[in-house]
Amino acid sequence: MESQKICEGDYVLLYLDQRRTYLVRVESGKTFHTHKGFVNFDDLIGRAYGERVSSSLGVEFIVLKPLLRDYILKSIRKTQIIYPKDIALIIMFSGIGPGSRVVEAGTGTGALTTALAHYVRPNGKVYSYELREEFLKAAEKNIKRAGLAGFVELKNKDVTAGIEERDVDAVVLDLATPWLIVPRAYVSLKPSGTMISFSPTIDQVVKTVEALEAENFVDVETVECLMRGMQIARGKTRPQTLMTAHTGYITFARKALKPA
Amino acid sequence: MESQKICEGDYVLLYLDQRRTYLVRVESGKTFHTHKGFVNFDDLIGRAYGERVSSSLGVEFIVLKPLLRDYILKSIRKTQIIYPKDIALIIMFSGIGPGSRVVEAGTGTGALTTALAHYVRPNGKVYSYELREEFLKAAEKNIKRAGLAGFVELKNKDVTAGIEERDVDAVVLDLATPWLIVPRAYVSLKPSGTMISFSPTIDQVVKTVEALEAENFVDVETVECLMRGMQIARGKTRPQTLMTAHTGYITFARKALKPA
Amino acid sequence: MESQKICEGDYVLLYLDQRRTYLVRVESGKTFHTHKGFVNFDDLIGRAYGERVSSSLGVEFIVLKPLLRDYILKSIRKTQIIYPKDIALIIMFSGIGPGSRVVEAGTGTGALTTALAHYVRPNGKVYSYELREEFLKAAEKNIKRAGLAGFVELKNKDVTAGIEERDVDAVVLDLATPWLIVPRAYVSLKPSGTMISFSPTIDQVVKTVEALEAENFVDVETVECLMRGMQIARGKTRPQTLMTAHTGYITFARKALKPA
Amino acid sequence: MESQKICEGDYVLLYLDQRRTYLVRVESGKTFHTHKGFVNFDDLIGRAYGERVSSSLGVEFIVLKPLLRDYILKSIRKTQIIYPKDIALIIMFSGIGPGSRVVEAGTGTGALTTALAHYVRPNGKVYSYELREEFLKAAEKNIKRAGLAGFVELKNKDVTAGIEERDVDAVVLDLATPWLIVPRAYVSLKPSGTMISFSPTIDQVVKTVEALEAENFVDVETVECLMRGMQIARGKTRPQTLMTAHTGYITFARKALKPA
Repeated sequence: MESQKICEGDYVLLYLDQRRTYLVRVESGKTFHTHKGFVNFDDLIGRAYGERVSSSLGVEFIVLKPLLRDYILKSIRKTQIIYPKDIALIIMFSGIGPGSRVVEAGTGTGALTTALAHYVRPNGKVYSYELREEFLKAAEKNIKRAGLAGFVELKNKDVTAGIEERDVDAVVLDLATPWLIVPRAYVSLKPSGTMISFSPTIDQVVKTVEALEAENFVDVETVECLMRGMQIARGKTRPQTLMTAHTGYITFARKALKPA
Repeated sequence: MESQKICEGDYVLLYLDQRRTYLVRVESGKTFHTHKGFVNFDDLIGRAYGERVSSSLGVEFIVLKPLLRDYILKSIRKTQIIYPKDIALIIMFSGIGPGSRVVEAGTGTGALTTALAHYVRPNGKVYSYELREEFLKAAEKNIKRAGLAGFVELKNKDVTAGIEERDVDAVVLDLATPWLIVPRAYVSLKPSGTMISFSPTIDQVVKTVEALEAENFVDVETVECLMRGMQIARGKTRPQTLMTAHTGYITFARKALKPA
Repeated sequence: MESQKICEGDYVLLYLDQRRTYLVRVESGKTFHTHKGFVNFDDLIGRAYGERVSSSLGVEFIVLKPLLRDYILKSIRKTQIIYPKDIALIIMFSGIGPGSRVVEAGTGTGALTTALAHYVRPNGKVYSYELREEFLKAAEKNIKRAGLAGFVELKNKDVTAGIEERDVDAVVLDLATPWLIVPRAYVSLKPSGTMISFSPTIDQVVKTVEALEAENFVDVETVECLMRGMQIARGKTRPQTLMTAHTGYITFARKALKPA
Repeated sequence: MESQKICEGDYVLLYLDQRRTYLVRVESGKTFHTHKGFVNFDDLIGRAYGERVSSSLGVEFIVLKPLLRDYILKSIRKTQIIYPKDIALIIMFSGIGPGSRVVEAGTGTGALTTALAHYVRPNGKVYSYELREEFLKAAEKNIKRAGLAGFVELKNKDVTAGIEERDVDAVVLDLATPWLIVPRAYVSLKPSGTMISFSPTIDQVVKTVEALEAENFVDVETVECLMRGMQIARGKTRPQTLMTAHTGYITFARKALKPA
């Protein structure tokens, strides 16, 4: 069983309440400053996850072990990240799991890359294409922080020029012109492999679906997912007041072989 | 790389169109009957996934490699199964992945069990409790069919009497009275571990959230997820006409340690 | 105060339960047949609305006074009708009320026409264009049944050839090519008047919005409305299982005058 | 036909763009200040609705005739107002129209009252109960501004003590404890009349539905309405990013007479 003692160098999630959580790296001799006082990392080292630690102002934080979702939501961002709800569906639709070989484009700041890497462990691999170097740097930091660098190959290459990998299980697209990559995805995928595209606009979806149908993709399906939080309290239970109304559409397809 | 040739004993997905897909086991010398004629399994053996096969009536089916989602949607059912959209969120919220040790209750017909097992491979384990033997039998078939029996321990025991496992990463509940299991889940979970409950009614959610708050769970959150399909066709693009309006609420929490 | 006694010739709503309601015309000496026995209309005449009447099999029906929504939902249909939720929003967005003069195209089977007529009473008017005669006949029956024929002028004319009315308060479009009618609507509307279009597809909406912006319409807005029923019962409260996922988009605009 | 010239004392909607609209009263010799310069009301008087007027900084505003929805959205607020989408459904479900007599409780700041008054004109009446005087004052201003004071009787009385009106067509409740008013509504309603309640929480709905079923109400139905805006632009069409996730549930019922 994995040790639950907090060690120097670990990332921990300091939890005050649902709106105030901090993903920080434990460094001996250092402190973390919040508006509720500072936390001494030395107070954490050797303690168990799930314990409470007091700040200099006597406010209690709970020290949690970060989950995949925390790494995603706390990504260093250079751009809009994909939401966990959409990542969850992309993972499910793609069919990937431990051992899968996956191509992703573009990397962005690596939120989806992190999730893909999490699930393909320990013997799969994510090949992630991104042209913009400043994104790649942020992505690399985010992926390292989640301890997943060993499962990702970041490629500073133009995916429209071609995908180098062959016989991959899934191609996942989160870029402005997915329809241009569809023929590249077809070549890269193993037969019966899956292609998933995430796009905010209807126009992108229409072009992508047309491109999928022009190649030999089948089972083409587009969905959107709305997640609504609930405020649960006896006598006052109700859905939350505001929600994200739209993030993007998820389009799924499977590679069939061309008729003989 | 995994072989892509279809072998005797493989499960394949025969795809005619989006509404007509069949999850079948390839058995030499046998046939599969559809209303579009029968398919000879001998025509499939040795062929590649993604190829087409003709039925006795000359109708073409595409032979796809089943994905997790196919195994879920094609489960032998004794009861309502959880939808892939909810399973996807449960997986994401739970934080589980390769190597996780997970307790599930109840097994039902094993749709969620199958998904949990898929993601904890190759070195994790799902301990799944179910009292009703007829469900366990169906679940066992579904899990075996997906090739995941090695990652699941089915337990014909009453989870309200206690969870035997300790220091598990996540407890996932899909049963009528989740609030009764919350104290058991607290004991079974490792510190900072996650608890997820799926319930169709508000009343179940309120009782469960109250039980979580009575124990030392934090970061308690309840959401529901609506997935809507899109009909994509240039000049005729629109959301689908009918949708599943409600499946259930997903409640998430993390175990904190009791204050000293 | 309006008399509440049921009279020969009245339309009544026979209510058994929420799924079994019947909009029928009371005719002395006649009966209405249901699978729960027949109801003698003579048993109704002179009775009060809200009372119960027994069928020949001893099953009780409640005799309700039909509401606008009943007339809409029980329309004789030749085509898909607009749902009350969408009609409600169209009425609200259009700003119409007692006294308004409204142009509608097309009439269809008159569900929306009936609602418009209901709200413009007693001194407003609805001018409704429809080319297809079989629709007009059904519409006429539906409007008469609701007692609103005096507030509607049905016009068997091609609205793409022009709208004859001038200085109307609102133009309401529910037809396949609303963008073609936008310039006609502009001419017909009084300054600051409103235009509303209802369309199922995104493509129709995009073309219509472009046409509105090409004319001097302002405050252009498109929405869609999702209505979800709730199953309310202590201990078992939850949203309904199935819902209508999409009916159509409502586009709203106001006529500004062209710059001098 | 109603004159379209702008007169001293009229309320007008100055429209800059969708986010910047101002509901103001035209007063000769005065000006209206915006961050885009001031508008001289004397420049408006005698002009037609729909025309453009320039501010002192040369920015053009369009002068629109306010619609019901504008009066609602621009209400002087002392409390959360009901959204137009919900008001629209309440109007539709209630079945009211020109000539209806309606009881409302509570008045709040009069947004729903304004809408009810708009639709019952010219020969109906709204009787609106409100205990809190500061709300009544704001409501009175809002209703006067919309020119609807003649159709509303504001009653500074406790509705839980009883409804004074009899044989009304509809009772509309928007208060914290609707279930307490249900027996009062039953007595006040004419047979077959309608009761509508608007409540933010599930708990209120459950209690109200139970109260309705305890009295002789039938056809009890609860819905919620989600409205989502669309961003329409060729090549960039998509739903809006944020939306109101929840306002309240609408519960509808009809009064049946008690069995003999």
